[in-house]
Amino acid sequence: MASGSIARTAATGDGGMIPELLAWSSSMEDDVGLAREDILGSAAHATMLGETGLISREDAKLLREELLGLYAQAEKSVLALPSGEEDVHMAIESLLTDKLGDVGKRLHTARSRNDQVSTALRLHVRTRRARLVVLAAELVLSLVERARAEKDLILPAYTHRQRAQPVSGAFLIAAWSTGILRATKRLADVDVSECPLGAGACSGSSLGIDRTLTAKLLGFPGGPTKNALDTVGDRDFSLDYTYACTRILLALSRLATDIIDYSTSEFRFVKLGDAISAGSSMMPQKKNPDIFELVRSKASFGVGNVVQLMTLVRGLHAGYSRDLQDDRRATLGTGPIVGGALGAVMLAFPHVKFDKVACLRAVSDGSTQATDLAEALVRQGMPFRDAYKAVGKLVSAATDANRTLISLTEAEAKTFHPAFNEAALRALDPVRAVAAKESIGGTGAASVEGQLLALEAEATILRELHTTDTLRAVAERIADYPN
Amino acid sequence: MASGSIARTAATGDGGMIPELLAWSSSMEDDVGLAREDILGSAAHATMLGETGLISREDAKLLREELLGLYAQAEKSVLALPSGEEDVHMAIESLLTDKLGDVGKRLHTARSRNDQVSTALRLHVRTRRARLVVLAAELVLSLVERARAEKDLILPAYTHRQRAQPVSGAFLIAAWSTGILRATKRLADVDVSECPLGAGACSGSSLGIDRTLTAKLLGFPGGPTKNALDTVGDRDFSLDYTYACTRILLALSRLATDIIDYSTSEFRFVKLGDAISAGSSMMPQKKNPDIFELVRSKASFGVGNVVQLMTLVRGLHAGYSRDLQDDRRATLGTGPIVGGALGAVMLAFPHVKFDKVACLRAVSDGSTQATDLAEALVRQGMPFRDAYKAVGKLVSAATDANRTLISLTEAEAKTFHPAFNEAALRALDPVRAVAAKESIGGTGAASVEGQLLALEAEATILRELHTTDTLRAVAERIADYPN
Amino acid sequence: MASGSIARTAATGDGGMIPELLAWSSSMEDDVGLAREDILGSAAHATMLGETGLISREDAKLLREELLGLYAQAEKSVLALPSGEEDVHMAIESLLTDKLGDVGKRLHTARSRNDQVSTALRLHVRTRRARLVVLAAELVLSLVERARAEKDLILPAYTHRQRAQPVSGAFLIAAWSTGILRATKRLADVDVSECPLGAGACSGSSLGIDRTLTAKLLGFPGGPTKNALDTVGDRDFSLDYTYACTRILLALSRLATDIIDYSTSEFRFVKLGDAISAGSSMMPQKKNPDIFELVRSKASFGVGNVVQLMTLVRGLHAGYSRDLQDDRRATLGTGPIVGGALGAVMLAFPHVKFDKVACLRAVSDGSTQATDLAEALVRQGMPFRDAYKAVGKLVSAATDANRTLISLTEAEAKTFHPAFNEAALRALDPVRAVAAKESIGGTGAASVEGQLLALEAEATILRELHTTDTLRAVAERIADYPN
Amino acid sequence: MASGSIARTAATGDGGMIPELLAWSSSMEDDVGLAREDILGSAAHATMLGETGLISREDAKLLREELLGLYAQAEKSVLALPSGEEDVHMAIESLLTDKLGDVGKRLHTARSRNDQVSTALRLHVRTRRARLVVLAAELVLSLVERARAEKDLILPAYTHRQRAQPVSGAFLIAAWSTGILRATKRLADVDVSECPLGAGACSGSSLGIDRTLTAKLLGFPGGPTKNALDTVGDRDFSLDYTYACTRILLALSRLATDIIDYSTSEFRFVKLGDAISAGSSMMPQKKNPDIFELVRSKASFGVGNVVQLMTLVRGLHAGYSRDLQDDRRATLGTGPIVGGALGAVMLAFPHVKFDKVACLRAVSDGSTQATDLAEALVRQGMPFRDAYKAVGKLVSAATDANRTLISLTEAEAKTFHPAFNEAALRALDPVRAVAAKESIGGTGAASVEGQLLALEAEATILRELHTTDTLRAVAERIADYPN
Repeated sequence: MASGSIARTAATGDGGMIPELLAWSSSMEDDVGLAREDILGSAAHATMLGETGLISREDAKLLREELLGLYAQAEKSVLALPSGEEDVHMAIESLLTDKLGDVGKRLHTARSRNDQVSTALRLHVRTRRARLVVLAAELVLSLVERARAEKDLILPAYTHRQRAQPVSGAFLIAAWSTGILRATKRLADVDVSECPLGAGACSGSSLGIDRTLTAKLLGFPGGPTKNALDTVGDRDFSLDYTYACTRILLALSRLATDIIDYSTSEFRFVKLGDAISAGSSMMPQKKNPDIFELVRSKASFGVGNVVQLMTLVRGLHAGYSRDLQDDRRATLGTGPIVGGALGAVMLAFPHVKFDKVACLRAVSDGSTQATDLAEALVRQGMPFRDAYKAVGKLVSAATDANRTLISLTEAEAKTFHPAFNEAALRALDPVRAVAAKESIGGTGAASVEGQLLALEAEATILRELHTTDTLRAVAERIADYPN
Repeated sequence: MASGSIARTAATGDGGMIPELLAWSSSMEDDVGLAREDILGSAAHATMLGETGLISREDAKLLREELLGLYAQAEKSVLALPSGEEDVHMAIESLLTDKLGDVGKRLHTARSRNDQVSTALRLHVRTRRARLVVLAAELVLSLVERARAEKDLILPAYTHRQRAQPVSGAFLIAAWSTGILRATKRLADVDVSECPLGAGACSGSSLGIDRTLTAKLLGFPGGPTKNALDTVGDRDFSLDYTYACTRILLALSRLATDIIDYSTSEFRFVKLGDAISAGSSMMPQKKNPDIFELVRSKASFGVGNVVQLMTLVRGLHAGYSRDLQDDRRATLGTGPIVGGALGAVMLAFPHVKFDKVACLRAVSDGSTQATDLAEALVRQGMPFRDAYKAVGKLVSAATDANRTLISLTEAEAKTFHPAFNEAALRALDPVRAVAAKESIGGTGAASVEGQLLALEAEATILRELHTTDTLRAVAERIADYPN
Repeated sequence: MASGSIARTAATGDGGMIPELLAWSSSMEDDVGLAREDILGSAAHATMLGETGLISREDAKLLREELLGLYAQAEKSVLALPSGEEDVHMAIESLLTDKLGDVGKRLHTARSRNDQVSTALRLHVRTRRARLVVLAAELVLSLVERARAEKDLILPAYTHRQRAQPVSGAFLIAAWSTGILRATKRLADVDVSECPLGAGACSGSSLGIDRTLTAKLLGFPGGPTKNALDTVGDRDFSLDYTYACTRILLALSRLATDIIDYSTSEFRFVKLGDAISAGSSMMPQKKNPDIFELVRSKASFGVGNVVQLMTLVRGLHAGYSRDLQDDRRATLGTGPIVGGALGAVMLAFPHVKFDKVACLRAVSDGSTQATDLAEALVRQGMPFRDAYKAVGKLVSAATDANRTLISLTEAEAKTFHPAFNEAALRALDPVRAVAAKESIGGTGAASVEGQLLALEAEATILRELHTTDTLRAVAERIADYPN
Repeated sequence: MASGSIARTAATGDGGMIPELLAWSSSMEDDVGLAREDILGSAAHATMLGETGLISREDAKLLREELLGLYAQAEKSVLALPSGEEDVHMAIESLLTDKLGDVGKRLHTARSRNDQVSTALRLHVRTRRARLVVLAAELVLSLVERARAEKDLILPAYTHRQRAQPVSGAFLIAAWSTGILRATKRLADVDVSECPLGAGACSGSSLGIDRTLTAKLLGFPGGPTKNALDTVGDRDFSLDYTYACTRILLALSRLATDIIDYSTSEFRFVKLGDAISAGSSMMPQKKNPDIFELVRSKASFGVGNVVQLMTLVRGLHAGYSRDLQDDRRATLGTGPIVGGALGAVMLAFPHVKFDKVACLRAVSDGSTQATDLAEALVRQGMPFRDAYKAVGKLVSAATDANRTLISLTEAEAKTFHPAFNEAALRALDPVRAVAAKESIGGTGAASVEGQLLALEAEATILRELHTTDTLRAVAERIADYPN
């Protein structure tokens, strides 16, 4: 139990909760990161109160100006919040009241802490989400660029971590990027479009508030939330956000696993530059892939946070329960984890260098191209089953003779089936095998370029759509509102 | 370890895996529910192979007809799958080969088990999702209807499980419905729009397949998946589906908690009919809310399944790993849990009867209407702060005198502030308090009717959009394809 | 991504990792709480190095004294760690080298960061666990005392949240306490008995170290860990600890649910004192049970942390992976949550006052004693089935007549069965019903007193056993080691 | 919603629950696996009722004999349970009543479904746990034997999946075994020592039951549970069991990851025999490690089940809630998953063959022995820091010259430091490096043999202790009870 540093203040009521319990129950430590969001929610509310006549225009103006001033301080990280308040919302109200006296107290007209907190949380999720979407889209764009640089790299694709078929480096990077982009789209789809402000404690208000105006000022395209009781007990937006963030972390964990494996002495497909690897003065050959291990491990936090939130809300009654306060750590904490992991991959990936020779060697004995050989026969007109059987025989014979497939001469091959002519046997060349797979989604060059163009287009759109959804933009909209 | 009931068959290769291990590694038990989906995937594939000339039109026709015949059997639950196969896909191929000989074997041209399995899983998720969306939408529609029947019911809304403000029964039911609908929309948004068929083992095909055709036949509006390597290792659709299903279960868990609480001897807000309660011959007054307890508990399965899938995919390399087979239990098992819970609430809710008198009594002493009294003064022109202070004094005095707020006469009230005239004091009447909250999302009658109309409209659209996405419709589309 | 505040230092090697990545990969923020444990691990190691001659006794003495000095500073919270180091272990080594020069560098002889970190973590878990066991045992002891004070309180026990049978307050509190104690025993059983120091990087050492000595100095009763490769990749102790902590949180969540329900206007079984409830100046009757809501919600963090750790370690290869660094947040963070929740209940529970009249009223109509009446007939010699039938008839008749069971006269009852004499009907008295259940584990007074004595004995033993396992005791043992 | 196949029966009461809801709420499908446990619980109860005179000795004898007969049928898998009952407990009672009429009905004297179900569950957990402990201990014993066979195998140990230091095969296998054994001990420690029978519905009984006798007959060493209200709502034993099972699965997942990696074309440390690998007729070189992939994936089920149970019980009130029925799937389902995975590894591991040459080659260039060289100098009397520096220079020089460490001659080495004599340089030999690490827990031969002896001793004890805790032994104890 933390010491009783939270004093009883006017804001927390003159009730006499034991100081240690007051301190323990405070969410200040967790929600101090919501200061800017809370300030903007209040600024929009004050503007609306003035507009509807629930407070005077003069008071509304005073409040708005003071709040936008606090916002500017918070942006510069120079906002000093009074200690000893129960949460960030109380701390800001207390600042305001110190400055404006009774006018400060008018701010709480026709709102409750329940809708106020929910508004700040949603603003946070919406804008942080936008920032993460932009970051992820930028990572995808940089991976697409890198993919183009790795068009000529040939390496095995794996199933069961066994070499399966040769693919291009561009195709592999496109695969990772496709997973990351899919997760990013999920994040972009998280629904935080509605504004809770005005839901009140749980049933709305009998005063003539204008919820549409506050929703508009705060940039919520869906307008006000639909049912006040649902609103104050709803953390679905937080859950969806945390889940979608975790989807990104899961996608990154798979890329990380590949890089870690590829950087081993056994694979040697990639070399990690000094700029991203942790070395050892005793074993200079050792370049530990710490960054990618830590990217891989981050998904575990996402999973834990999703579970925490689900467990938290399960079985709560309709309306607000104090339990909901414990949404903060996951809601505010998941974003930085995702942002950190995205940033780490962005910084580190350029220092991952593929070893083309080692990569190609891994598909050079022809065994991973047996299917390609069969398909070559099919393209020459042979039924698939016959082709399949013929290749099977060839493969068996090579294995029995301890020979690689690629080393068989046309003459040797033809003893198994006349169709094994030189043209067909070229399919065993990994470079040709890659080139031939031009089905949609395949590893052929044109197919891959199509994939990269699509990735690029989608990532660019996502980036553009989300770049402007910032707290600063909200602040400007409120400041610009005429009154 | 189950006994070694899976024999080595042609399909599983003539490799000599130990029978007990073959049995243990079989997914047959879990994926037998995918028979229809697998059959339809194969029928679409055969149609495409014929269309592109990769097999003869005659063979394609034979295959398609046989497969649609198997589908019809499966629909009637009379499809007998051979035992002893490794999974449902092998079992069906084995059926086909028994019947059509070599023609049956041609089916596997230009596909791999990896894309085949993924196709069946996505068909399952897509159509089961549609069915659940329809069920959930129907539940919302029936709740909306019930809400309209409870317009005149007045009961307290709760915060911290303490009586907070009076609301109408319609508003409460709208709150539950809003949560359920929001989760349903999330489910409807799960992205299973792309078709994996043709991704092959991991890198596409060098044969001239037509992935757009199979995607169309199988009803995937997004066309083929974009990158083959990503496709075969991707279970994001399953994870999103399981997550969205869990969102529905979480929403239902909250409704269930309210019903359980309301049915206690202490609340007595609802009576559970004999048709839905478990009784006791010793204690006839006891009507246990078992159905709602079981609805509440079901969310735990959802949470467990989401975690299982996340843990499963974390850190897998790009491409297919056999680990992915263990997606079946969650992917196929979550739907029936959600369907069961939705069905249970649908059946049970009409037998939940509100006790209007008991409900109203809970808000009749006026204490839950103190805010309404203050707002009444504001509506008369008094600044909110003054109103707030005046009501505060009145409440304190009533408490000190051990009187209820509602019992104070106008004369008594006016000794605290002249504004407490009869008109203002009427705000303490819970019926009037409810009626006055006409802000958007509020509990006022017009506001609630707006909420109900919106719920109805959205639920109707969801129901209509998803009614037609069935396996049967896929089968008909394939059967109707000219060739 | 945090800004690049971690500089490249001698400790982190002169490798050139990008500063932002170095900062991102640092665990400093999470493991600063391990300073004291790290210092003590080093002090024990230095002592051993001197004792075995791997460094000179003089150097060993210098190191130990300096380290114990740092420990003393850390105890007083005046230890200033240099910023810019990768983790707390490096920061401390850097402090030491600044002070002692080359002697400081000798400390790292025959150890690796892998065993060093593991040692600090286990010391933390072991001693924090001890502290939590003591706290939990004290809570149980205080609940036992309270239980004795509530011996005469009669209230319903619930099944399905329906009144089931009358029990004493002492019995109810004993039930909660039994769950808490069981979880506490699980925590006490967590196995952190073995000392990892000397495992080295992963395979032990070829130098003549004495692992038994360091284990003894650090207070690990199980001696050194058994296999070095297992040791450096093992976080089972952390997982078990986090799991057991969560078991305590789950037990507290159930107690919290009861208090929240009992404090509603509907139950009114308890009143929450002002010292523990959050009020409202507008609604003075409202006493929100925030403390218990927050106790209830805390279990969600435990569940999330258990999942995070499980997901983290699944599928890691044998030996150390950097992923393991992400054990810190759960390992160090779960303890304070449990400690906070235990402390909150300890402080709050004395301010929970039962309303004896309301409690008794809930079992006064006799319906919850129907089973007791049947058992009374059995005690008079009637076969149970007959007794059961006779009571069933009586209950039905009362219900039909809209009468309570308790209101039936002997004469009325006898019309159903002659066995319903006055003596038998007394069983409907809730006080007698409670008194009669003297089976082991029953709610009868003697049975409950037996339960309380057992709880008291077990809790006392747990408290005594764990009081002395502190870091301070470790420091003293090291300081007292002769050399 | 399943169709309404559960009829209303005498057992479920004549209440009129809607058949579909009755069917949906039935746990029959999940708990049919508890038939034997339920029968034995009833047999013990009947014996006690006779002994205490609550029913006649004749009735008790009839009941016991009939129940033991049903048990014998269940053991032979020929027990036919009536369909249409709500759960397995009702189905068995119904069988009994069909056979014995009124005597069958006497069985339910002084017990409730709540304690009956809990008894069956605990019997299941206790005996299944014993079986799993035996299986796991046997796996450890077989791994120890294998370890002895791999004493001369030398391969790298890894940190960060980078080669770190050479170890023996025996040491590596001992590492895996240590993790498995630790998890097995945790499972053996799960506390299911107390017997719930006699707790009744929630508060005990007023009849003179003898709970100590039933506990003894059923083999619960801890005697009766302590508090009836706690007992009927407690599923901690199930949670602890599921958690401990998951610990085993996590340990197996790490072994599996190593085998999967080692079987790649890149590592080639092991070859998987045909008996355990899934092949491909097209790519005969491909031996997919499916069995180990599936072992690795199984831990995800454990994690999901732990979470499901935690989420289920969080926040339930004291006493029984119907929610608890949803413990079945995890409680009954986790055991077979663990048993299957243990059996799979047991069967598969003998078919994993190490390639000694490839393994040794991986540590032959000397780089992984740099630390050993430094320690060799220390053993010659040089201070560690100086040794460390000298080796560092040598390593750098070799790297710069593109030479391996091992290839340096004594003369070349001595140009860096005179201490690099032939004796010292021998430390670069991986075989010697392994041999030298004889610290406790190290990879030296004697140290490893000590580890193996300890593993063997502990596993043998666990096996012996748990072999006899079977349902059959319980049945015999009941049958042998004189009366």
